[in-house]
Amino acid sequence: QQRFIAIRSNKLFESIVVAVIIASALLVGAKTYEMPPTIQSVTLLLDWFISAFFLLEITIRFIAEPNKKHFFRDFWNVFDTLIVLVSLIPADDTDLALVARLVRVFRVLRMISIIPELRILLVSLFKALPQLSYVMLLMFIIFYIYAAVGATLFEDINPDLWGDITISLLTLFRVMTFEDWTDVMYETMEVYPLSWIFYLTFIFFTAFAFLNMVIGIVVGVMEQ
Amino acid sequence: QQRFIAIRSNKLFESIVVAVIIASALLVGAKTYEMPPTIQSVTLLLDWFISAFFLLEITIRFIAEPNKKHFFRDFWNVFDTLIVLVSLIPADDTDLALVARLVRVFRVLRMISIIPELRILLVSLFKALPQLSYVMLLMFIIFYIYAAVGATLFEDINPDLWGDITISLLTLFRVMTFEDWTDVMYETMEVYPLSWIFYLTFIFFTAFAFLNMVIGIVVGVMEQ
Amino acid sequence: QQRFIAIRSNKLFESIVVAVIIASALLVGAKTYEMPPTIQSVTLLLDWFISAFFLLEITIRFIAEPNKKHFFRDFWNVFDTLIVLVSLIPADDTDLALVARLVRVFRVLRMISIIPELRILLVSLFKALPQLSYVMLLMFIIFYIYAAVGATLFEDINPDLWGDITISLLTLFRVMTFEDWTDVMYETMEVYPLSWIFYLTFIFFTAFAFLNMVIGIVVGVMEQ
Amino acid sequence: QQRFIAIRSNKLFESIVVAVIIASALLVGAKTYEMPPTIQSVTLLLDWFISAFFLLEITIRFIAEPNKKHFFRDFWNVFDTLIVLVSLIPADDTDLALVARLVRVFRVLRMISIIPELRILLVSLFKALPQLSYVMLLMFIIFYIYAAVGATLFEDINPDLWGDITISLLTLFRVMTFEDWTDVMYETMEVYPLSWIFYLTFIFFTAFAFLNMVIGIVVGVMEQ
Ligand code: NA
Ligand code: NA
Repeated sequence: QQRFIAIRSNKLFESIVVAVIIASALLVGAKTYEMPPTIQSVTLLLDWFISAFFLLEITIRFIAEPNKKHFFRDFWNVFDTLIVLVSLIPADDTDLALVARLVRVFRVLRMISIIPELRILLVSLFKALPQLSYVMLLMFIIFYIYAAVGATLFEDINPDLWGDITISLLTLFRVMTFEDWTDVMYETMEVYPLSWIFYLTFIFFTAFAFLNMVIGIVVGVMEQ
Repeated sequence: QQRFIAIRSNKLFESIVVAVIIASALLVGAKTYEMPPTIQSVTLLLDWFISAFFLLEITIRFIAEPNKKHFFRDFWNVFDTLIVLVSLIPADDTDLALVARLVRVFRVLRMISIIPELRILLVSLFKALPQLSYVMLLMFIIFYIYAAVGATLFEDINPDLWGDITISLLTLFRVMTFEDWTDVMYETMEVYPLSWIFYLTFIFFTAFAFLNMVIGIVVGVMEQ
Repeated sequence: QQRFIAIRSNKLFESIVVAVIIASALLVGAKTYEMPPTIQSVTLLLDWFISAFFLLEITIRFIAEPNKKHFFRDFWNVFDTLIVLVSLIPADDTDLALVARLVRVFRVLRMISIIPELRILLVSLFKALPQLSYVMLLMFIIFYIYAAVGATLFEDINPDLWGDITISLLTLFRVMTFEDWTDVMYETMEVYPLSWIFYLTFIFFTAFAFLNMVIGIVVGVMEQ
Repeated sequence: QQRFIAIRSNKLFESIVVAVIIASALLVGAKTYEMPPTIQSVTLLLDWFISAFFLLEITIRFIAEPNKKHFFRDFWNVFDTLIVLVSLIPADDTDLALVARLVRVFRVLRMISIIPELRILLVSLFKALPQLSYVMLLMFIIFYIYAAVGATLFEDINPDLWGDITISLLTLFRVMTFEDWTDVMYETMEVYPLSWIFYLTFIFFTAFAFLNMVIGIVVGVMEQ
C-alpha cells in the first residue's frame, strides 16, 4: 500500500493523469468531425486506453486510501468513480453506441475534480444556491400562475406555444429572455387586444425578482 | 373558540392546508391538458372540494381570532379571504366558465401567504419600490416624450407600431428590450435617414436610467 | 414686485402650474390619436391657452426675482424659458405644423424642472458621467477600429450594413445589443469563414468595457 | 541628444502628435466612403505623410531615451513601434492593398498609448483578468461538454449549427446571447422532444457562471 500512496502523490503520475484527461477531452471533440475509418478505429483504441487508464488510476487511489470507508465519503472520489465506471459502456456496440459516446463526454468533467481551484469554485457556487431558494420559488410561482393563465386564455390561438402548462412555461421562459417575445404578444393581441398587460406585468415581475436574486447574491458575497 | 384555536395551531391541520394548496396548484396545471370527460368531472369535483376546504379553513381561522376586527387588519388574511371568496364562482357555469377557471389560478398565490419566508421576501420587495419611484417617473417621462415624437413623425410609416401614443409606448418598450429593434429602425430610416438618432438616444437614456435604478437598489440594500 | 413674489410662493399657484404641465402632457398624447375636426380645434385652443399660461408663469417668476442677472444663471430657469419660448411657434401654420407639434412635446420636460426630486436625480446622473468619459472613449475607439475593419472587409458583402464607417458603427451597435447578430455574422462567414473571430472578439471587448463601466459607477456611488 | 529630449517634452510637439493621430483616425474613416480618384490620391499622400511623421516621432523618442535598452522594456514603446513599422506596408501595392488598409486601421490604437488615462484604464482591465481565469475555464468546460453533446445528438438535424464541435461552440454562444435561441431549440425538439432540457440547463449554468464572474469582479474591485 505504501507503494500506491507513493504513486498517488508522485508529481509525474499527477501530470500524466492531467494529460490523459486533456487527451480524453480532445478525443471527445475530435469524434464530432467526419473521419476516415482508419482514424476512427484509432479513436476507438485511444478510447479503450483512456478507459483502462482511468480505471487503473481510480484503483490506485482506492488502494492508497488507508481507510476504505472514507474513500466514498469524499464527494469527488464518488464523482470520479461514477464517471469512470459509466464510461466503460462499450462504444463499439451499435445499440448503445450513441449512449456510450454521450457518456464519454462527461469524462471532461474530471477536469473539475482534478483542478482544486475549480472544485473550490464549484462548491462556493453551490453554497450560494440555498439563499436563492425562496426567490426561485417565488419566481416559479409567478411562472406557474402566468403559464396557467396563458394556457387557459391563449390555447386556441396557438397550441404550439400555449397548448398546456409545460409548453406555456417554456414560452414564458422565452418571453423572459426577450426572444421574439413581441411575435408571441402580437399574435394574442389580435384576439385579446389587452393581452399586452399579461406580457408586460410578467416581464416586470420576473425582472424584479431576478434583480433581487442578483442583489441577494452580491450582498451575500459581500457579507463573507 | 378554544377548540378552533387548537385546530388552527395544530401541526397536522397546517400540513393538510399546505397539501390542499399544492393539490389546487397541480389541479390548475392539470386542467390545461386535454382530458376525457370522466376525468374532467373528477377535476370539477376536486375543485369543489378544494373550494369548500379553503372556505372551512378561513372560517376556522376567523373564529379562532379573539378580536374579529384585527382579522381583517392583517393584509394576508384579507388576501386569503378574497382569493377564497372569488374562487367560489361556479366553474360549471358556461357563461362564467373562463372567468371561473382564471380565478381559480390565483389560488396558487396562497402558496405565498402560507410560507412565511415568501411573505417576508415579498414585503421586502415592495418596500424597495418607493425609493425607485422617482427613477421610474423619470423613465416614464423619457418614454412619454419619445412615444409622442414617434407617434408624430412615424405614424404614416407604420401605424401598427406608431399609430397612437399607447402603441408607441409599447413599441418603445420593445426597443428597450432590444427585440428586433433594428427592424423598427430600418423601416423609419427609409423615410427619415437620421431617425437612428431617435433610437440610439432613447436606448442610451433608458439604459442609463435603468442602470441607476439597479445601482439605487444595490446601494439601498447595502445601507440596511 | 412683492405681489409677484407672493404669487410665486403661493401653494395654489404652484398646484395650478403642475396641473397645467400635466394637462399639456396629456394634450401632447391626445393629439397622437385620430380626432374629429371639432375636437381638433379645441386642442389648438387648449394649446394656445397653455402657451399663454406658461409665458405668464415665466414672466411672474422673472419679475419676482430680485436680481434679474441671477435668473438666467439658474440652469432650470433657462431650461424653462427656452421650452416656453420655443413652443410659441404657431401650431396652425402648415409649413411649421410638424416642427411646432414636436416642439410642444418637450413641454413635458417641464415635469422635471417642477419636481425637485427629479431635478436632483438628473443632476446626480449627469455628475456620474465624467467619471465614465474614459471608458466611453475606450469603447468608442474599439467601435471605431472594428467599424473601419468591417467597412474595409465586408463592404462588398452587404453595403446596407457595412457601406461606410457610419453604417458600420450602427451595425456594430446592433451586434452589441445581440439583435439578430448571427444573421450579420453568417452572411460574412460565407465569404470569410473565420469572420466569427471579428464578432466574438468585438462582443468580448465591448462586454468587458461595459462591465467595467457599470462597476465604475457602482464603486463611484459607494464611495459617496 | 539633449535637443531630442527637449523636442520630446515640448508641448507643441505633443499636441502635433495627438493631432496627427486624430487625423490618421479620420483618414481611416474617410477611406471607407466612395471617393473620386483625385481625393483618393490625396488620401494616399496623407497616408505617406502620417507614416513618415510617426516614424520620425518614434525615432525622436528612441534617440531621446538615455538608455536604449529601457526603450523596448516599456510595453507602450514596443506597442507604438510595432504599429508604426507594420503600417509601412505600401498601401498602393495591389497585392497587399487590403492588408495595408487593415493595418493602418490599427494606428487608431495609438490613441490609447498617447492618453495616459486610457493606458491606466487598459492596464487595470487586464489586471482584472487573472482573477477571472478559473470562472472562464469553468465556463469553457460547460461550453465544451454541451458542444460535444450537441454535435453528437443534433448533427443530423442541422449540420450548419451542430456539424462539429467548433460550429456547436459558436451555436451555443449564440444561445447564450439569446439570439433566436428558440429557433435552434424548436428545430431539435421536433426530433428529441425533451431537448429543451439541454438548452435550459445550458442557459442556467452559463448565466450562473457569468453572474459569479460579474460578482467576482465587483468584489475584487471593492477590496482594492
Ligand atoms: Na431576436
Ligand atoms: Na434578442
